[in-house]
Amino acid sequence: MKARALVLEKPHELNLREIDLPGEMGDDDVRIDIHTVGICGSDIHFYTHGRIGDFVVREPMVLGHEASGTVREVGDNVTHLKPGDRVCMEPGIPDPDSRAARMGIYNVDPAVRFWATPPIHGCLTPQVVHPAAFTFRLPDAVSYAEGAMIEPFAVGVHAVAKARLEPGSTCVVTGGGTIGLMVALAARASGASRILISDVVDEKLAVARGYEGLVPVNVARESLREVLDNHVGETWGADAVFEASGSTKVFDDALACVRPGGVLVLVGMPPEKVAFDVVAAQVKEVRVESIFRYAHVFDRALEIIAAGKVDLNPLIAHTFEFDQSVEAFERAAEARPNDIKLQIRMASA
Amino acid sequence: MKARALVLEKPHELNLREIDLPGEMGDDDVRIDIHTVGICGSDIHFYTHGRIGDFVVREPMVLGHEASGTVREVGDNVTHLKPGDRVCMEPGIPDPDSRAARMGIYNVDPAVRFWATPPIHGCLTPQVVHPAAFTFRLPDAVSYAEGAMIEPFAVGVHAVAKARLEPGSTCVVTGGGTIGLMVALAARASGASRILISDVVDEKLAVARGYEGLVPVNVARESLREVLDNHVGETWGADAVFEASGSTKVFDDALACVRPGGVLVLVGMPPEKVAFDVVAAQVKEVRVESIFRYAHVFDRALEIIAAGKVDLNPLIAHTFEFDQSVEAFERAAEARPNDIKLQIRMASA
Amino acid sequence: MKARALVLEKPHELNLREIDLPGEMGDDDVRIDIHTVGICGSDIHFYTHGRIGDFVVREPMVLGHEASGTVREVGDNVTHLKPGDRVCMEPGIPDPDSRAARMGIYNVDPAVRFWATPPIHGCLTPQVVHPAAFTFRLPDAVSYAEGAMIEPFAVGVHAVAKARLEPGSTCVVTGGGTIGLMVALAARASGASRILISDVVDEKLAVARGYEGLVPVNVARESLREVLDNHVGETWGADAVFEASGSTKVFDDALACVRPGGVLVLVGMPPEKVAFDVVAAQVKEVRVESIFRYAHVFDRALEIIAAGKVDLNPLIAHTFEFDQSVEAFERAAEARPNDIKLQIRMASA
Amino acid sequence: MKARALVLEKPHELNLREIDLPGEMGDDDVRIDIHTVGICGSDIHFYTHGRIGDFVVREPMVLGHEASGTVREVGDNVTHLKPGDRVCMEPGIPDPDSRAARMGIYNVDPAVRFWATPPIHGCLTPQVVHPAAFTFRLPDAVSYAEGAMIEPFAVGVHAVAKARLEPGSTCVVTGGGTIGLMVALAARASGASRILISDVVDEKLAVARGYEGLVPVNVARESLREVLDNHVGETWGADAVFEASGSTKVFDDALACVRPGGVLVLVGMPPEKVAFDVVAAQVKEVRVESIFRYAHVFDRALEIIAAGKVDLNPLIAHTFEFDQSVEAFERAAEARPNDIKLQIRMASA
Repeated sequence: MKARALVLEKPHELNLREIDLPGEMGDDDVRIDIHTVGICGSDIHFYTHGRIGDFVVREPMVLGHEASGTVREVGDNVTHLKPGDRVCMEPGIPDPDSRAARMGIYNVDPAVRFWATPPIHGCLTPQVVHPAAFTFRLPDAVSYAEGAMIEPFAVGVHAVAKARLEPGSTCVVTGGGTIGLMVALAARASGASRILISDVVDEKLAVARGYEGLVPVNVARESLREVLDNHVGETWGADAVFEASGSTKVFDDALACVRPGGVLVLVGMPPEKVAFDVVAAQVKEVRVESIFRYAHVFDRALEIIAAGKVDLNPLIAHTFEFDQSVEAFERAAEARPNDIKLQIRMASA
Repeated sequence: MKARALVLEKPHELNLREIDLPGEMGDDDVRIDIHTVGICGSDIHFYTHGRIGDFVVREPMVLGHEASGTVREVGDNVTHLKPGDRVCMEPGIPDPDSRAARMGIYNVDPAVRFWATPPIHGCLTPQVVHPAAFTFRLPDAVSYAEGAMIEPFAVGVHAVAKARLEPGSTCVVTGGGTIGLMVALAARASGASRILISDVVDEKLAVARGYEGLVPVNVARESLREVLDNHVGETWGADAVFEASGSTKVFDDALACVRPGGVLVLVGMPPEKVAFDVVAAQVKEVRVESIFRYAHVFDRALEIIAAGKVDLNPLIAHTFEFDQSVEAFERAAEARPNDIKLQIRMASA
Repeated sequence: MKARALVLEKPHELNLREIDLPGEMGDDDVRIDIHTVGICGSDIHFYTHGRIGDFVVREPMVLGHEASGTVREVGDNVTHLKPGDRVCMEPGIPDPDSRAARMGIYNVDPAVRFWATPPIHGCLTPQVVHPAAFTFRLPDAVSYAEGAMIEPFAVGVHAVAKARLEPGSTCVVTGGGTIGLMVALAARASGASRILISDVVDEKLAVARGYEGLVPVNVARESLREVLDNHVGETWGADAVFEASGSTKVFDDALACVRPGGVLVLVGMPPEKVAFDVVAAQVKEVRVESIFRYAHVFDRALEIIAAGKVDLNPLIAHTFEFDQSVEAFERAAEARPNDIKLQIRMASA
Repeated sequence: MKARALVLEKPHELNLREIDLPGEMGDDDVRIDIHTVGICGSDIHFYTHGRIGDFVVREPMVLGHEASGTVREVGDNVTHLKPGDRVCMEPGIPDPDSRAARMGIYNVDPAVRFWATPPIHGCLTPQVVHPAAFTFRLPDAVSYAEGAMIEPFAVGVHAVAKARLEPGSTCVVTGGGTIGLMVALAARASGASRILISDVVDEKLAVARGYEGLVPVNVARESLREVLDNHVGETWGADAVFEASGSTKVFDDALACVRPGGVLVLVGMPPEKVAFDVVAAQVKEVRVESIFRYAHVFDRALEIIAAGKVDLNPLIAHTFEFDQSVEAFERAAEARPNDIKLQIRMASA
């Protein structure tokens, strides 16, 4: 079908124009009117660099993968959704018969088709067709704007699930950007009592400071381990450390903060190999978990928001209209420290 | 040393009188002025029945094991506490060289010495000597009254730790008494988004209703599974069900509520064997965890309270002075449904 | 398609006759010439009782679900199999889009279609069509007869996987029938060093005695816990106890044998509720795992056989030809203690 | 007490001479006549370099920590051992009241006292006093020579326990030295069906080739991942990869071999930081476990040997008499590829 969409033609060239998009419904699909789409760092990276690792933009591609909307039509087999339902969507669709998917780890299925990851089109267009199994009804208490934040929040929830936090844990999150905040807030909602969050940019840390239970640490001025020691005693450490900066320089600090028998969760994706101190990990028998996107957490993330355990609204810095999409991406590319999340509203419903 | 104490002479006979108690300090011990002591169901059970299982009161025994106080003196090896520190105490002292203790499961060490479990004296006396390793400093934000609630709250925290809750979990707690509430509040602080709590006494459920996120269900009038279905959909179930009533009659309901692959945590101690439907558990591959007291959770429980994630104060129905201890036990023996916790204050500090 | 098959017309009435069976190939299917089929206790139970729980034989049904064979034809999407491959088949086919299947626990999907469980036909017929994803190539070292044993062995492997055995574990298996032996052999191949296996029938235990590392205990004459004590010391116990008898009477013994912090795995399916001593489990914090069939273990089970870690051949008491199928079932219904496994050979290839 | 011992005076200077050693018995101790002591790479490293990391030989120190012997005398509290018992000893003694020890992870207690790690004397002397809790009776089937191999084998058992192998796993071990072989043999005894073991020295791999189930791979000539692909199929990988070479160069290969959702266990201790490809781990959600020595595995390691699941004897290249100790160390320092283990026999009993 022909539809208007935000199209990345090639690096640095965005157009809001008509494009031919797949629009056929299968029996297990739903048709959704998109309401709100958040702009993610990966969208910006494709815009500015044209590639992320092996994923290269070779053809014009619609951007956007953090979305909420309203169900307009449902396939014959769909029972848990109906037209009019407010929903958000998990943007990665695995092959359900792949070996990884059958084991329940569909996020590491190499055949997964993910919105706005070449060559798959994203959702910055008024209407999409999506599998019902990856479409989730928004509880009444969750707005469209929050619904479009579930995708990045799911990364935090998945990271926390992998850490297997015990109640009353002390955590450290390195990196105070969007993903660091998502991890910190998910941890706070899931058993962590004290969460240090580190960055070198005061404006980012100011956002963290607005949340109860988050202790911002500017590592340009303070030692992370020393601040931690004031909280947990000099010879122990944090139950869980989440690396969410993607910086190669933070690994010594991160390892130094883990308590004996604790866990380091690798969330950020460093652009190159990191110098990792194996022996420092061994003498404390640190467990290291690495995560990739998320699996089985959209419904849980929605539960957390609906329960009032996390308020994502303060993270939304500005909302643009669909017509302002190119402008929205230009603003996002500026990477202002306070712009934790910029969103584009497709509909006024 | 001679000290005044609340002594259970034999079933139904309590005296506040002088008794000879051990008072020698070791190098790893601390001497504590007791401030507040909560009355536990097991105290009452010894009072009214003179025994719990194989533990029989054969000699006069001081009652009480839920306590907070102030450090007066520390042994030579003690570094993490000093006189004047406000503290609470873990009442069970294992043999650190036992096989269970070495494995980190000291709570199931058969040689554990536990306050007010025959023949070990409890703490309803103005001063005790206790191992520093099992004495925990109260954060400034935690009152003595809350400190004396850490012991029962630790049962809830331990149960939740065993369940290994994932973020955003749906839970069911069967039993709305003290332990049921402790489990529900610990779950709420540790990742659970929705918690159904069931009982047959409306007054108990009224206490639960006062907490956000707890959904009281009177199973005298409503089907637990049906209420759950309205929350999670008819074919799935709760991620975790905590049996905290100690009733033999609740097990079919409890199993029926667990989702495929979910967990049933046995917290309550039924007075006799229960009729357990093995096949009902198998078709959903339910994992069943059984818990006994707690291990390694006092510091975590304190973190949770200090972080403001749980407010235990509404559970304290009345506070008696030490001189009123016998009266306090008589009131506790009445088992008024609103009397979630009665406490005795030893000191006015 | 019309095919000859062993048909259970109704309880106690078996015929080897022509019947109409589904034979259409999908793109993800394979067509298999059946070679060998084992007779399982559930086949016999349908034969003698006409039902197992809620599964009732209302229409004529082909029996058999433990099978090996040879691939004759493969669907267009099938890449890991080709005509001529020797294979065995997992008999339960889940809906890959069910909630349970997506989580990786497809065995507890209520929509699973399982051979010879009403109303699904089994495989005692010369040819079947089966999804390639549930068809496993036999390593060269694994015979057709062994291939047809993988299904019951998979139950044992799954039980052992759920126990999460540590290396050098001491195990107890209650029940010396087919499933008990399968569990014991899987445990032996997977880290268990000492395995007690109990029964009341000496002939069954004689089979166990033939395997190195298995210690048979006739509980009609000996106390299981006492024999265990001679092995592991009076105050500890077994790391894992597997209940594989399906008897309601064995649960006290089983619990008594678990060490503090150990696991009880429920494999056998008792015909009614069991009297379960919750407090006996709690004082040792026993974890109880319940299992239902298996998931993700056929390839692992084949690896174990191919590696020579378990020899299943001594368990095959007799092999019948397809023409003798009714006779084979009559023999199986006698339940001779030495008849651990009877098989029917469909082909001479 | 004065005793003859193999004393490392300073780097490169060894003497067999009299030295003053602690010999006082506590109530929980046993006195042991040492029978056999193995030479470990760390002994050699202290001999040739005088230090390992922060542990520096500043005073003369007795070497040796892999030992078996015979109990001569037991302390008053000791019940599980008696004079005449054949035993082996765990060489690291933690503080049972440390935070790590109380949690059951005593091996990461920074206060652990470990034989032949400065400033603690080792056991290359005819008699030692040792805590009974860390002294293990040899089953009849286990010789003194094998008993003195339990210490290095325990490293392998601990690594495998941390991996949480499922039955029928495919494993890769990088590094064919003593520790690599120990890991491979422990894995083989604990559920692994296929184990690739890599090195660049053919003589080392020849030892591995002597064990059933171990597949040697010379990575100077072959690609590890390619050999693995021939075993498990091109798009999957090994369930567990154990890094046991301590080389910094092997990490890309090791990560490349892990299957999606698999585990990498870090056993070897590289001399400097390694270049670690975080993203390569993330896209498969690899779990990384790091291990340090062992905890709670000596009894399990003995069970495995006693059960006949692993034969350690082929690894013992030569046995020296106590008088030849210096010569034994000179030979060990040559690092002949076939000298997997050299032992010193103290007694002829």
